[in-house]
Amino acid sequence: MRSLSTSSADGVQQLIFSVADVPAALWTPQGATGARPLILIGHGGGQHKTAPAVLHRAHRFVADLGAAVVSIDVPGHGDRPVHPDFHAAATANQARIDAGEDLITLLTAFQATVAEQTVPEWRAVLDAVQTLDHVGAGPVGYWGVSLGCGLGVPFVAAEPRVRAAVLGLGSGLANAGDAARITVPVEFLIQWDDERVPREQSLALYDTFASPEKTLHANPGLHSDRLPDHELDSTVRFFARHL
Amino acid sequence: MRSLSTSSADGVQQLIFSVADVPAALWTPQGATGARPLILIGHGGGQHKTAPAVLHRAHRFVADLGAAVVSIDVPGHGDRPVHPDFHAAATANQARIDAGEDLITLLTAFQATVAEQTVPEWRAVLDAVQTLDHVGAGPVGYWGVSLGCGLGVPFVAAEPRVRAAVLGLGSGLANAGDAARITVPVEFLIQWDDERVPREQSLALYDTFASPEKTLHANPGLHSDRLPDHELDSTVRFFARHL
Repeated sequence: MRSLSTSSADGVQQLIFSVADVPAALWTPQGATGARPLILIGHGGGQHKTAPAVLHRAHRFVADLGAAVVSIDVPGHGDRPVHPDFHAAATANQARIDAGEDLITLLTAFQATVAEQTVPEWRAVLDAVQTLDHVGAGPVGYWGVSLGCGLGVPFVAAEPRVRAAVLGLGSGLANAGDAARITVPVEFLIQWDDERVPREQSLALYDTFASPEKTLHANPGLHSDRLPDHELDSTVRFFARHL
Repeated sequence: MRSLSTSSADGVQQLIFSVADVPAALWTPQGATGARPLILIGHGGGQHKTAPAVLHRAHRFVADLGAAVVSIDVPGHGDRPVHPDFHAAATANQARIDAGEDLITLLTAFQATVAEQTVPEWRAVLDAVQTLDHVGAGPVGYWGVSLGCGLGVPFVAAEPRVRAAVLGLGSGLANAGDAARITVPVEFLIQWDDERVPREQSLALYDTFASPEKTLHANPGLHSDRLPDHELDSTVRFFARHL
């Protein structure tokens, strides 16, 4: 784990660091000592580890839950170089979509391929930050929608430290097997008018989770519309109950 | 409005009363003075105005929101006599269901008929309790699932005093026209494994509300299974935001 920079704002300490060349960010309460819950935020497609939507949630989780929050650049995003294979695959997919192939089928298959790399990367980052005295080996939560759901489902299925997950805006096409292995509490978000993920496929993913406690929250809106503020409030309470 | 009895428990004052022979119950904070939000709870089929599920929610709304809460016996329930027409229709329906006709189609049509009586009854009860100094003409909310949804949708559509509604475990078959006239914020509950209301029809009812703010909450469970405690917490916050 290599520290790259530190800063602080609004009582939140931010550490930019890398683990084996994977860039990541960690937020903790200013002056924190001792173990605490840790929440991993998976960013959306085209975003990165310190995108405004990530920062906004990270600050809420630190302020309201006293949690540590970590976010990691997905290959080809943020401070990471273009990934030749993924870039070539994305370009080829775009040509196939332009030629009339189904966007969500190609997209979820692509995300499943990327997850083969991100699952071990994210586990290595968890290992690293949990060695810090002010993070420690507390319970872990996961938050991710859209790309953060496509990569999050295989991660949550694989990682026993994760005790609760907020997922959404994703389909079960590519990772139904992983979804069916998830048994921790899940809060699952759907944008009711999502133009990218067909509603039936969102509902099918929710249906697939094996979790005895799983709640579906749907609200009107398109795929990239801002989620209602009351959903972030609900997320905070969900993690407070389970972490 | 005729007072029948009063009692109090846990800081909550209960008044049993009637308006034109319709029996109802009102709960308010002990010693309350002045206007406050009013929440009408529509009870479920086979229940009544002071059923445990109603009382439990009424006490939470009074304690957490400082609200007044009112609940009204549906015809043929609680302290009301058997309603000859409804009783005959219900008996005939049961015979048709036993003969293989679709339960939910018959049930929702029956509820639409009952609502022609309950909508004016409930409006008259609102009129009466809002004349009380410790209730007053504050904003009104509605909570009702199952039968309370079947009768609640026409009520919320008809009654402009209602500013927010929690509905659920109901189908849009019989009252799609009413649902499409509802524009106030709605929190809509689905039991994901509901054996009485087909999932597609629950989703269709949520889809039909014209409300710009409407949230769907689904949880695993059968029709009559207890709703998760976190849903009542969510209901309290929903009314706190809107009343």
